[in-house]
Amino acid sequence: MKIVEKQIEVRYAETDQMGVVYHANYLVWMEVGRAELINQLGFRYTDMEKEGVIAPVTDLQISYKKPLRYGETATVRTWIDAYDGIRVTYAYEILTPDGELAAIGKTQHVCVKRDSFRPILIRKYFPDWHEAYERAKK
Amino acid sequence: MKIVEKQIEVRYAETDQMGVVYHANYLVWMEVGRAELINQLGFRYTDMEKEGVIAPVTDLQISYKKPLRYGETATVRTWIDAYDGIRVTYAYEILTPDGELAAIGKTQHVCVKRDSFRPILIRKYFPDWHEAYERAKK
Amino acid sequence: MKIVEKQIEVRYAETDQMGVVYHANYLVWMEVGRAELINQLGFRYTDMEKEGVIAPVTDLQISYKKPLRYGETATVRTWIDAYDGIRVTYAYEILTPDGELAAIGKTQHVCVKRDSFRPILIRKYFPDWHEAYERAKK
Amino acid sequence: MKIVEKQIEVRYAETDQMGVVYHANYLVWMEVGRAELINQLGFRYTDMEKEGVIAPVTDLQISYKKPLRYGETATVRTWIDAYDGIRVTYAYEILTPDGELAAIGKTQHVCVKRDSFRPILIRKYFPDWHEAYERAKK
Repeated sequence: MKIVEKQIEVRYAETDQMGVVYHANYLVWMEVGRAELINQLGFRYTDMEKEGVIAPVTDLQISYKKPLRYGETATVRTWIDAYDGIRVTYAYEILTPDGELAAIGKTQHVCVKRDSFRPILIRKYFPDWHEAYERAKK
Repeated sequence: MKIVEKQIEVRYAETDQMGVVYHANYLVWMEVGRAELINQLGFRYTDMEKEGVIAPVTDLQISYKKPLRYGETATVRTWIDAYDGIRVTYAYEILTPDGELAAIGKTQHVCVKRDSFRPILIRKYFPDWHEAYERAKK
Repeated sequence: MKIVEKQIEVRYAETDQMGVVYHANYLVWMEVGRAELINQLGFRYTDMEKEGVIAPVTDLQISYKKPLRYGETATVRTWIDAYDGIRVTYAYEILTPDGELAAIGKTQHVCVKRDSFRPILIRKYFPDWHEAYERAKK
Repeated sequence: MKIVEKQIEVRYAETDQMGVVYHANYLVWMEVGRAELINQLGFRYTDMEKEGVIAPVTDLQISYKKPLRYGETATVRTWIDAYDGIRVTYAYEILTPDGELAAIGKTQHVCVKRDSFRPILIRKYFPDWHEAYERAKK
């Protein structure tokens, strides 16, 4: 199973008045981790969009374990948790600078046509992605 | 069971290049819905924070059903899904202008001391809130 | 001169660890004020985009006078500061709940074709908007 | 004059339905550039906050020249434009991957006590910062 790591320096804008990172911003970081995984598989999400296909999130879960603060660098670890040719589930661990779990999460995605939001088969439209995902999930 | 509705006009800033509302922004709207529910129970979240207590999200799930677009007004319906004197789970429905489900979600919260992030008992620290939550969850 | 007011309830997500609204969020509010002005002139910005035209910000200035906090409702006052058939400058006052100035700002916009980012003449492409802007700026 | 560069990979969340980076996000990047400059001068903004002092933006100007898109890496160049012992003005250039100007901007800051928002003298409270700023502005 291919696991990809990405460092994220906490931005001031990402904090809230609790003095820690606002919880919705973890979703942005998960997306950064996801893009990094896709890049490391040799693809670019923008190429998919150029074909008129987008990959919106359909389901998302996250558990928050420890707060992160401005001045810290978080690590996002991302891997493919499940893939069936239609749906992809990515899993994520977000780590504190000490390597402790700050959060764990999953997102599920379906590829759809940009214009109609109609689902497409990844294995049919993007056979190269399909093969890479099959290999990466093991 | 007390269900509270809040109208949200989609902001341009909330869209992304898919042409729809970016998925992390639904979490912000859920928070707006949650604040409205608390207000309608007769409390203000800022009063809790003045006591040195904050209520961070510990777990969150969301399923995205239909996209929302700039120019539309969404409705967030919020209620208390579970409450045991320590943890609160809020549930949310986000509706399109046509009343269709755009998303459903849940967030779980624990009250903690701002300084230490140590959990406190809501029923002990905030007995008025406790009673209101007990009534509202039915 | 037509001045339009819009109430904005501060969102928790909009605060930062200073305990006040993060400065970039005022730009989002100014956009909400701008949309309200356009609506009250009888137009919808989405209709312009449907014609393949967008109105990006080209210049922006803002002075921050007083902080705003979660739990407060701000008021955004928006009007047309200048308009010459090509460029529009909107001006904004953001007020605290006590009616004091929280911020003042201006944004300048040019309408461009979405595909090429080439400027278009508002007075030629959108004569109705042109007339309304001419009237509103007085 | 010390000029500091910081690379910023555009995040999907930072785009809007125009298909380019939403204009308010440049302010966040300017802040990232500013933090990098402060770090390279040998300081950490969080240390200032630990002393009960914050440095809010009081004035901000930005001119947008060219759009930036998802998949691109921007460069933020930051330097001290003016400093008088009380106020600091930072200047910024944001560059496209081709080295063209995407935006130029300035932000002015005053250091204030966190609790009262009362201004303090940087040269008195933080003499080390004062000296470093005096040197860096040349």
